[in-house]
Amino acid sequence: MSLIFVGSFAFDTVETPAAKADRVLGGSATYFSYAASFFGPVRLVGVVGTDFPPAYRELLQSRNIDTAGLETVEGKTFFWRGAYEKDMNKRTTLEVDLNVFGEFDPTLPEHFRDSRFVFLANGSPRVQMRVLEQVARPQLVVADTMNFYIESQRDDLLKLMRRIDGMVLNDEEAFMLTGASHLVDAGRKVLAMGPKFVVIKKGEHGAMLVTPTGVIVLPAYPTDRVVDPTGAGDSFAGGMMGYLATQEVFDEPRLRRAMAYGTVVASFGVEDFSLDRFRQIGMDNIRSRYEQYRAMLAL
Amino acid sequence: MSLIFVGSFAFDTVETPAAKADRVLGGSATYFSYAASFFGPVRLVGVVGTDFPPAYRELLQSRNIDTAGLETVEGKTFFWRGAYEKDMNKRTTLEVDLNVFGEFDPTLPEHFRDSRFVFLANGSPRVQMRVLEQVARPQLVVADTMNFYIESQRDDLLKLMRRIDGMVLNDEEAFMLTGASHLVDAGRKVLAMGPKFVVIKKGEHGAMLVTPTGVIVLPAYPTDRVVDPTGAGDSFAGGMMGYLATQEVFDEPRLRRAMAYGTVVASFGVEDFSLDRFRQIGMDNIRSRYEQYRAMLAL
Repeated sequence: MSLIFVGSFAFDTVETPAAKADRVLGGSATYFSYAASFFGPVRLVGVVGTDFPPAYRELLQSRNIDTAGLETVEGKTFFWRGAYEKDMNKRTTLEVDLNVFGEFDPTLPEHFRDSRFVFLANGSPRVQMRVLEQVARPQLVVADTMNFYIESQRDDLLKLMRRIDGMVLNDEEAFMLTGASHLVDAGRKVLAMGPKFVVIKKGEHGAMLVTPTGVIVLPAYPTDRVVDPTGAGDSFAGGMMGYLATQEVFDEPRLRRAMAYGTVVASFGVEDFSLDRFRQIGMDNIRSRYEQYRAMLAL
Repeated sequence: MSLIFVGSFAFDTVETPAAKADRVLGGSATYFSYAASFFGPVRLVGVVGTDFPPAYRELLQSRNIDTAGLETVEGKTFFWRGAYEKDMNKRTTLEVDLNVFGEFDPTLPEHFRDSRFVFLANGSPRVQMRVLEQVARPQLVVADTMNFYIESQRDDLLKLMRRIDGMVLNDEEAFMLTGASHLVDAGRKVLAMGPKFVVIKKGEHGAMLVTPTGVIVLPAYPTDRVVDPTGAGDSFAGGMMGYLATQEVFDEPRLRRAMAYGTVVASFGVEDFSLDRFRQIGMDNIRSRYEQYRAMLAL
């Protein structure tokens, strides 16, 4: 397994109706890499400022996450502040400072270039492409994106989409990217742009997989302890890619199972702030919840 | 099987971004009874005005739906006009005339009083209670409700909830009724009010079953031909109750399978206006789509 991931590290300040967390470890790279590391080793590409505590880097290294691609640059780490409403599907971004992430131009460590599995978390499609070009012979490439890049760097994004195997994005982004009015249609339109499969994340409503041969919808695992949904989409992608990186073929049954693992891993992640819940669990907890999830869906 | 249903008949004028239907047959009774009739006979309690075409009554009768409880009253049938946005989860009610449904005070035909399965579609909880009191020894009683009655007749609704086995309502209504901030919690709070199970409908996102022993979430069937979502919740309830009325026990596996049948039946209903799609299909189509649905969820 050689899974490489490029994404962001951040300090997050999160307010929910019930609690608040101040400047906790966040960002897509944090959630993705920890979630994927339950399944096997992860190679991380990202950037932090000089204010990033060594303890955080050590935490990742203790998880079999190779941080050789994690640059430290003079300046501050990406900062995000947001608040959730009582309906936790709704959140408002109150503050974003890209800081050192704004100028990120990653160069891969030599020993990362043979990676077989590549996940390009949302970021500029030019940066995503630059990372992809440094991987010699990728076997499975999956990318995420977001509204900002769909609007402002559409041409670059379309170019990237012709080079990837799969795409992961949320429902709003799928509608924005394709102009479709319902989700199955949006999925089909994404396929027409290049990828062989697309996973559309629907937050607490689960996820939809669209391939040329079919459409699969899985619900979220109904945990009754939702403390903080921040990072759930990245944890989902981490669990999904972590599982796929243990496989040899990527057919519909494997993709579906990968989605199910992503769902289960993400359901743990939202049960506390930052990585707090992940740090309490192991693969045995994930397997046991996966079994419950499987039983719930057995008709 | 003796399933009795009380609900509304209406003329619906529906606008979607793609098409328009003018004064077509609608109302909870229409969708519920047709959906349930795939599984067995249905006894219908409702009211229409003198403008209700005999052909519609004959259509129901041709489906093994006993219309002895369908009163005709001097005046006009319930009328509803609404429009869907491009995102078909969002609709606006443009016009509602309760007409004869506003004064509805149902008296059950004598031969309906031995019904074992009772479904009380949304309507005044006083009327729902009056129907329930006329059934001698109901075995399984399930009720729906809506925002208007939750706000204006809460005490009567709470009284009704102590007399029923199950409740079916949508997510917004569940939040409004319980004050909960997430759905699992809302489900648990509904149970504390009396019912032994609750099914929370989430529209295109599926449904959640909450019982004292667990939480089960099933996704909607991903049809790619959504023409008109009107009546989907009632078709879901019809398929669910139709299946349950063929069973002897109502444990979690049966309730889950009932939800799955409701999901599949509803997915056909939205593929055209009014009953148009239902009129093209039979139980073989439902069984075959159920098999696809089951396979989609098999992990």
